[in-house]
Amino acid sequence: MCLYHAKKKPLAKEVSLKRVAERTPGFSGADLANLLNEAAILAARRNKKVVEMDELFESIEKVMMGPERKSQVISDRDKKITAYHEAGHAVVAHFLPNADPIQKVSIIARGQVGGYTLKLPTKDRRYHSKSEFLDELAVLLAGHTTEKEIFGEVTTGATSDLRQATNIARRLITDFGMSEALGPRTFGDKEEMIFLGREIHEQRDYSEKVAEQIDKEIFSFIEGAIKQAQEIIKGKREYLEKVAKALLEKETLEKEEFEKIVGRKKLDKKG
Amino acid sequence: MCLYHAKKKPLAKEVSLKRVAERTPGFSGADLANLLNEAAILAARRNKKVVEMDELFESIEKVMMGPERKSQVISDRDKKITAYHEAGHAVVAHFLPNADPIQKVSIIARGQVGGYTLKLPTKDRRYHSKSEFLDELAVLLAGHTTEKEIFGEVTTGATSDLRQATNIARRLITDFGMSEALGPRTFGDKEEMIFLGREIHEQRDYSEKVAEQIDKEIFSFIEGAIKQAQEIIKGKREYLEKVAKALLEKETLEKEEFEKIVGRKKLDKKG
Amino acid sequence: MCLYHAKKKPLAKEVSLKRVAERTPGFSGADLANLLNEAAILAARRNKKVVEMDELFESIEKVMMGPERKSQVISDRDKKITAYHEAGHAVVAHFLPNADPIQKVSIIARGQVGGYTLKLPTKDRRYHSKSEFLDELAVLLAGHTTEKEIFGEVTTGATSDLRQATNIARRLITDFGMSEALGPRTFGDKEEMIFLGREIHEQRDYSEKVAEQIDKEIFSFIEGAIKQAQEIIKGKREYLEKVAKALLEKETLEKEEFEKIVGRKKLDKKG
Amino acid sequence: MCLYHAKKKPLAKEVSLKRVAERTPGFSGADLANLLNEAAILAARRNKKVVEMDELFESIEKVMMGPERKSQVISDRDKKITAYHEAGHAVVAHFLPNADPIQKVSIIARGQVGGYTLKLPTKDRRYHSKSEFLDELAVLLAGHTTEKEIFGEVTTGATSDLRQATNIARRLITDFGMSEALGPRTFGDKEEMIFLGREIHEQRDYSEKVAEQIDKEIFSFIEGAIKQAQEIIKGKREYLEKVAKALLEKETLEKEEFEKIVGRKKLDKKG
Amino acid sequence: MCLYHAKKKPLAKEVSLKRVAERTPGFSGADLANLLNEAAILAARRNKKVVEMDELFESIEKVMMGPERKSQVISDRDKKITAYHEAGHAVVAHFLPNADPIQKVSIIARGQVGGYTLKLPTKDRRYHSKSEFLDELAVLLAGHTTEKEIFGEVTTGATSDLRQATNIARRLITDFGMSEALGPRTFGDKEEMIFLGREIHEQRDYSEKVAEQIDKEIFSFIEGAIKQAQEIIKGKREYLEKVAKALLEKETLEKEEFEKIVGRKKLDKKG
Amino acid sequence: MCLYHAKKKPLAKEVSLKRVAERTPGFSGADLANLLNEAAILAARRNKKVVEMDELFESIEKVMMGPERKSQVISDRDKKITAYHEAGHAVVAHFLPNADPIQKVSIIARGQVGGYTLKLPTKDRRYHSKSEFLDELAVLLAGHTTEKEIFGEVTTGATSDLRQATNIARRLITDFGMSEALGPRTFGDKEEMIFLGREIHEQRDYSEKVAEQIDKEIFSFIEGAIKQAQEIIKGKREYLEKVAKALLEKETLEKEEFEKIVGRKKLDKKG
Repeated sequence: MCLYHAKKKPLAKEVSLKRVAERTPGFSGADLANLLNEAAILAARRNKKVVEMDELFESIEKVMMGPERKSQVISDRDKKITAYHEAGHAVVAHFLPNADPIQKVSIIARGQVGGYTLKLPTKDRRYHSKSEFLDELAVLLAGHTTEKEIFGEVTTGATSDLRQATNIARRLITDFGMSEALGPRTFGDKEEMIFLGREIHEQRDYSEKVAEQIDKEIFSFIEGAIKQAQEIIKGKREYLEKVAKALLEKETLEKEEFEKIVGRKKLDKKG
Repeated sequence: MCLYHAKKKPLAKEVSLKRVAERTPGFSGADLANLLNEAAILAARRNKKVVEMDELFESIEKVMMGPERKSQVISDRDKKITAYHEAGHAVVAHFLPNADPIQKVSIIARGQVGGYTLKLPTKDRRYHSKSEFLDELAVLLAGHTTEKEIFGEVTTGATSDLRQATNIARRLITDFGMSEALGPRTFGDKEEMIFLGREIHEQRDYSEKVAEQIDKEIFSFIEGAIKQAQEIIKGKREYLEKVAKALLEKETLEKEEFEKIVGRKKLDKKG
Repeated sequence: MCLYHAKKKPLAKEVSLKRVAERTPGFSGADLANLLNEAAILAARRNKKVVEMDELFESIEKVMMGPERKSQVISDRDKKITAYHEAGHAVVAHFLPNADPIQKVSIIARGQVGGYTLKLPTKDRRYHSKSEFLDELAVLLAGHTTEKEIFGEVTTGATSDLRQATNIARRLITDFGMSEALGPRTFGDKEEMIFLGREIHEQRDYSEKVAEQIDKEIFSFIEGAIKQAQEIIKGKREYLEKVAKALLEKETLEKEEFEKIVGRKKLDKKG
Repeated sequence: MCLYHAKKKPLAKEVSLKRVAERTPGFSGADLANLLNEAAILAARRNKKVVEMDELFESIEKVMMGPERKSQVISDRDKKITAYHEAGHAVVAHFLPNADPIQKVSIIARGQVGGYTLKLPTKDRRYHSKSEFLDELAVLLAGHTTEKEIFGEVTTGATSDLRQATNIARRLITDFGMSEALGPRTFGDKEEMIFLGREIHEQRDYSEKVAEQIDKEIFSFIEGAIKQAQEIIKGKREYLEKVAKALLEKETLEKEEFEKIVGRKKLDKKG
Repeated sequence: MCLYHAKKKPLAKEVSLKRVAERTPGFSGADLANLLNEAAILAARRNKKVVEMDELFESIEKVMMGPERKSQVISDRDKKITAYHEAGHAVVAHFLPNADPIQKVSIIARGQVGGYTLKLPTKDRRYHSKSEFLDELAVLLAGHTTEKEIFGEVTTGATSDLRQATNIARRLITDFGMSEALGPRTFGDKEEMIFLGREIHEQRDYSEKVAEQIDKEIFSFIEGAIKQAQEIIKGKREYLEKVAKALLEKETLEKEEFEKIVGRKKLDKKG
Repeated sequence: MCLYHAKKKPLAKEVSLKRVAERTPGFSGADLANLLNEAAILAARRNKKVVEMDELFESIEKVMMGPERKSQVISDRDKKITAYHEAGHAVVAHFLPNADPIQKVSIIARGQVGGYTLKLPTKDRRYHSKSEFLDELAVLLAGHTTEKEIFGEVTTGATSDLRQATNIARRLITDFGMSEALGPRTFGDKEEMIFLGREIHEQRDYSEKVAEQIDKEIFSFIEGAIKQAQEIIKGKREYLEKVAKALLEKETLEKEEFEKIVGRKKLDKKG
């Protein structure tokens, strides 16, 4: 479906759909069609006859997170919080061997978010390992941890990070059997309950005692990830400060700009 | 949408939409349109050809809390309780560094409320910090605490304050990860359950033991806020008495009148 | 609406709508319209050309509790139980400083009730204090307590009193923050759940441990109220006996008749 | 409504509607109309021109419990069990001061029941005392207790007695405040939940600890009633045997026949 | 209804509907009509002009358990398991005084079952005693117990036996008041909840502590029944082996063939 | 139904529907019809006039698991994980006496799965023994266990294995009475609750204490199976490596190729 749309639009010769695909792991055909439409509109606005890579790259983020909200007035305090928060995500991801490398960091508000950090999965993989999830947890909690480290207290800016991290920690235990304490079994009857058109996620099929153990494990995964994030934030404080300052200055750092500050990522992934 | 409506109505030249916006943080476009309509109606009643700042300011409160109910006969006892209750909110807010400054205090009944205290957010901010929430909790509980301090017992007048305070305390813990005891994770599956057109707020996805810890933390946040309110009420008793008496006399205190009694607010907010 | 109806009917000149309003605190406009209709019907039956105070006062009770059921044969035992039960409510209310004064006591069956005690709120007040609720609890439990004191055992006659008392005790704790043990917070998510046209009252949003504490406090409020009622019943036994005997004789005691036995009420209310 | 139907049918002069009413406490107007219809049909079958007391009395039981099932073959064992079971109900009721006197005992199967014991309430009373309920409990459990005493084991014949007894014991505690241990409050939110046309009986609004206390009290009321029944069964064994034997012989004992064996009931009721 | 159908079909003179009724305790009118239809079809297939006892007896089992599945290939292992399993049911039932005598044992698959054991109730009785239920439990668990005894382990073949046994054990306690530990009361609010056309069986109206006691009693009844079954299986092992072997040989044993091996049943039932 | 479809299509003479049936235990008539359709389509694509065994065998897997996804690019890491994971299932199944013999192992992605291991049930049996389930548990958990053994950590690749294993362990206890600790009874009211067209699986009809025991038993069954899998994986490591390597080389191993590496399976099944 996406190729069909792409062909209908005049793409510049140098456009590499492969490079687009690399930056859009997890995109459905519909998402890609949407992306090509956005790029065509953008090219039209710019009075271009063909869609070039620029339009395609700009459209990726629009499709992912909604339009830029540059017009919105943001206080210096909020900007500073956002800069350190995103720098935290980016630096922690950079120094964790199983996290994907950083593609872009930005403090320009988009849709519902005040800033964002994009990572570039090195490969579309079928299986995810426990190490990847543990590093992902640390990256997700890095924004919160950085705020605490730098400003002494946290804001509501980390709310959706915390919800995502909690969900991952829970799935590690209840779906993937990755908790040593609870072992390789699953918890909760997840066969979807379509109830008047609504899906209720889980029917508890375990005892209260197991519910307590699951909570204990979630706490333990979260705590471990916080510690990992803290260590990097403290050990790489210098980089963190530099990235945050660069963000306050330029608002957006592309991969190359980011790596100029922190160096090239050392990947430790098998395969 | 709000600008469109505003243009259709003859606004006086000296009207500053910016000053209106400052007093209406959190207003939606629909709220603002509603506000401008109300102001136009008021101007018409007053046989004015243009809408002036007076009509706009009066309409803000009407839109926020419903029409004044001056006609309603209120007993001296109820008036006195209201005066001290509102004075409590106002004085505690004034002396807490992270609470917004007072814009207006009134004991004129409006809609469902017997009196009200308006605060003026200094800036429309994206993130809220734990300090802000803790001060907000103390301000919300200040009415209840003042009643107890002054009259020795409490009334049903604080009911909605208590409900709001409880909800904020709960969200600090379950949504914002701001409890040291429970850490940076979220609690409760909040994906909305549209169930025959009704939203059920939360599906408990944690153990009974965690439910107890959450309760313990809510109690602790509430207790802390009460203590903070009490300290200010006791330490600033003189101001409290003066504000309450002024309210009993004039029924409404604007920012300037209020600050004549308590002095100018010292803001401690970053940014 | 009620004034409109009242004007349409020929009211006697000496009718004082103010005195009617005093006896009908909490009446809605619709209730008052209903009352004036009933009074007009009654006047018509009596071949009066105008509605007089008599018709209005008789109609108040009919609207409040349904028609008299004088025809119903009631055993002497049931009459005696009713007389002491109602005397208990009336005497305890009379000697509690925060309870409203007695307007009428009756052992004539009306609608679902075997007898009734009417109180006259001295003023329509916006806020209710803890003291008022505690005295109200003692008054509600006074019928049950009197039965036990006089007959050595209780009957099903107190069932709705007990339900009301339990609900007030619960609200003191969960809605009004008036329990010292549980403090100024609210319990239970009461946002109405309209579920296929039905309202479910409360979604439990607290732990089992808190549920136990709430029960303990309800027990404690009930126990305290029973003690208070018992003390008055024992201390004022003479008055209780006199009121019960007068009720068995006359079936109904108006304020003046009641106060001839027990004296004038000493009010201790502020305001 | 019932009088209207009664007048339309030719009632014998000596028919006393008062005596009919005495035997049908709790009957609604519709039940009484049904009763008079049945009696008229019976009279027609017997080629009588008027309805006599015989037809009325026979119809009472038919309306209460369904038609006789004399044709059904019942084993000697079942007959013997029924005779002792019903004799147990009757003898225990006879010797308990707060239980109504026996009107009829029968081992003729009717509708769903294998036998029945009818009691004649001495008066239609508004209130029921704890003593009455406790004696009622002992009467209900007397069938079960007699089976155990006589045959050494129990059968399914007591199933509906046990359900009724459990419900009464529960209501004593949760609705009538008659438990010393739990005191004068109510338990359970019984406001009817009409849920798609169905009433759900109770929403638990108390803690697990209170649920345990309620169970403990139900057990205690049941145990007390069993003991009371056992004492009478043992102490009046001679009468029990005589009543059971008379039932096996005659199948039905009217009040007079029953009292010839056990003597006249000594009533201890007040009023 | 069943007689009507039976008359419409030509029944052989020697057909005794009484003997048919004896073998079909619990059959509804509809079941009997179905039975007569099946017998008529069978007679037609056999080119008989009248329905004889043979057709009626064969049809009883078809109506009870579905058509024979002789064509299905069954492994020797499955056949051997079935033979010992059914022999277990039959032998245990034979030696328990309160279990009904065996009418037929078969290892021919029918409908969902791999084999079956039919018992012939000696009489259609109104009440069932605890002793009857306890023996019934032992008979139900005898198949499972025999598999364990003979093969050292159990199969899924006992699944529906276990479900039935659990339900009977539960009803003994919660409906029939036959547990010494929990006494003569009922548990669970069973008034049917028709909820969108579906019946939900029970609303728990007791505490968790009572739920535990109920479980303990169910375990105890099951354990007792297993012991009883084991004793008979061990004590009568010789008979068990003979019955199993006869089944493997003949596939079906009628009452007379079965009793030739194990002797005549000694009934200990009263009445 | 399946025979009808099969006859309509030209099947090659040498086609043995019996051999097809052997490889499709548990297939419904609809599944078989589907299978024959797929084979006919495949034959048409290959320009064959008749459907041969090749088309039938290839279609079996397509019907079971969806079409092959050879085109999908899979990383070397994912391929290696899949190879060892499937080799684990296959080798453990091979050396467990009660597991069915291996028919095919493949690391070609099909539908939702990255690889698969097919077993060939030796016979369609009516009953399943506890030993069979325990071996099945070990086989299901072998993929997970192998990943841990070989790579030191696990991936999301075992998710559906874990869910299946948990469900089997639960049914052993709650449906089949195969837990020594909980004994031969069933748990959970499984009568299907059709609720707006949806089946809810189980209504808990046991106490929290029993829920804990069930969880303990599930953990114990899982733990036992993991140990069994580990022992074989360690003891037969050499074979595991060989199978994995062969898979990486050839992608698919048929029964014969697999048995060339590990030898012929020794069956220990009775019957």
